[in-house]
Amino acid sequence: MAKRPEALLFDVFGTVVDWRGSLIRELARVGRRHGVRADWGAFADTWRSGYRPAMDRVRRDDSSWRSIDEIHLQILRPLIKRAGLRLRLAEILDLNAAWHRLKPWPDSVRGLARLKQHFVIGTLSNGNMSLLIDLARAGRLPWDVILSAELFQHYKPDPEVYVGAAALLGLPAKAVMLVAAHKDDLAAARRCGLQTAFVRRPMEHGRALDADVSADRRCDVNADDFVELARQLELQAR
Amino acid sequence: MAKRPEALLFDVFGTVVDWRGSLIRELARVGRRHGVRADWGAFADTWRSGYRPAMDRVRRDDSSWRSIDEIHLQILRPLIKRAGLRLRLAEILDLNAAWHRLKPWPDSVRGLARLKQHFVIGTLSNGNMSLLIDLARAGRLPWDVILSAELFQHYKPDPEVYVGAAALLGLPAKAVMLVAAHKDDLAAARRCGLQTAFVRRPMEHGRALDADVSADRRCDVNADDFVELARQLELQAR
Repeated sequence: MAKRPEALLFDVFGTVVDWRGSLIRELARVGRRHGVRADWGAFADTWRSGYRPAMDRVRRDDSSWRSIDEIHLQILRPLIKRAGLRLRLAEILDLNAAWHRLKPWPDSVRGLARLKQHFVIGTLSNGNMSLLIDLARAGRLPWDVILSAELFQHYKPDPEVYVGAAALLGLPAKAVMLVAAHKDDLAAARRCGLQTAFVRRPMEHGRALDADVSADRRCDVNADDFVELARQLELQAR
Repeated sequence: MAKRPEALLFDVFGTVVDWRGSLIRELARVGRRHGVRADWGAFADTWRSGYRPAMDRVRRDDSSWRSIDEIHLQILRPLIKRAGLRLRLAEILDLNAAWHRLKPWPDSVRGLARLKQHFVIGTLSNGNMSLLIDLARAGRLPWDVILSAELFQHYKPDPEVYVGAAALLGLPAKAVMLVAAHKDDLAAARRCGLQTAFVRRPMEHGRALDADVSADRRCDVNADDFVELARQLELQAR
């Protein structure tokens, strides 16, 4: 078994916070205020799924960094129109800031507090720094450090992000563990020499859609939530 | 009066933590273990004062970034010899890591916790990220975010550090306040458009040396400690 890591870095959207449920609640609230009904789950899914191709365009062209806030806003505007919502600019910007207020999964804060007793804990997210700071303050996430793709001007799964994060922690890659609910993120981290922990988040895409929650045998740890992750890593430490 | 800031960034060495007292305690402990007596206060002062010229060399030559940990180690080695200490490499490295264990001033944690209720609070230090993370964990400093010169590959007082920090916070410079016990740091921040708060730390250089604790009228706020800073900023908010 690999040596116990010194730091745990967490993917955030879907792994630490429930983006879909949080967005649906905010969208429904805006809808009620304007007397508009729509399938807010589908709205949230389209909003989220648009971010990958937009990010990939940034990844192909180093010269044109755009933050996740900017990417979210660009995807949001046509979605608002299509849903039949007529919002003022301030309302649009406030809705876009819903991503700064996403709620943690029920186990996140308790699990992180327990993990923090043994490890340096931090984010490693494609979200921009200000977004991650706001999420942490709103959700009382007890991070030791906030690391973002923004610091490296590269988005995950580019290796610069994982390698750069380990360097900022002053640690060799193998002393850092990425924790994520997404196997592609974990695979990219592993290629850079990091340890990996897969945490199942079956509700990330709502009840309707099946998330891939089968065990990932390439990972050092598989866990059902952060508290169970803590339990497993504490056992490993003995 | 300037508009209330949204984020407070703190210089760390001398402003948040008592580097001199902490180093003297660690040096005296090493001395006792090896039966060596020396003026550990003078040792600490020389160690600290060597960092400015070393840093200035990095500031003049962008291509050769060196972390504060590296700079501290380079200054430390001849000092150890001169003090008549014979240390193994592991002991030297552990002594160099004393900078990762510096103790907060008595008001720091309480003041920061109170300020955190109203503002985003973070570091803005020349210390490298891993050093600042360790300081925060050891001293239970409740930062929302850790920002370091290392992120910008420029040392304070280069403007890149202050401008870059505000950008990462997603804020205009005028919405950010630098809190520091050093007037040159504050002056550089002010030239970049940040608000500034001078906090007096008369003991930074020990009883013998007079720190410059006269009021700095160019600053938006002058305070005796972080709790008083909180009190003044809370009044301003009304």
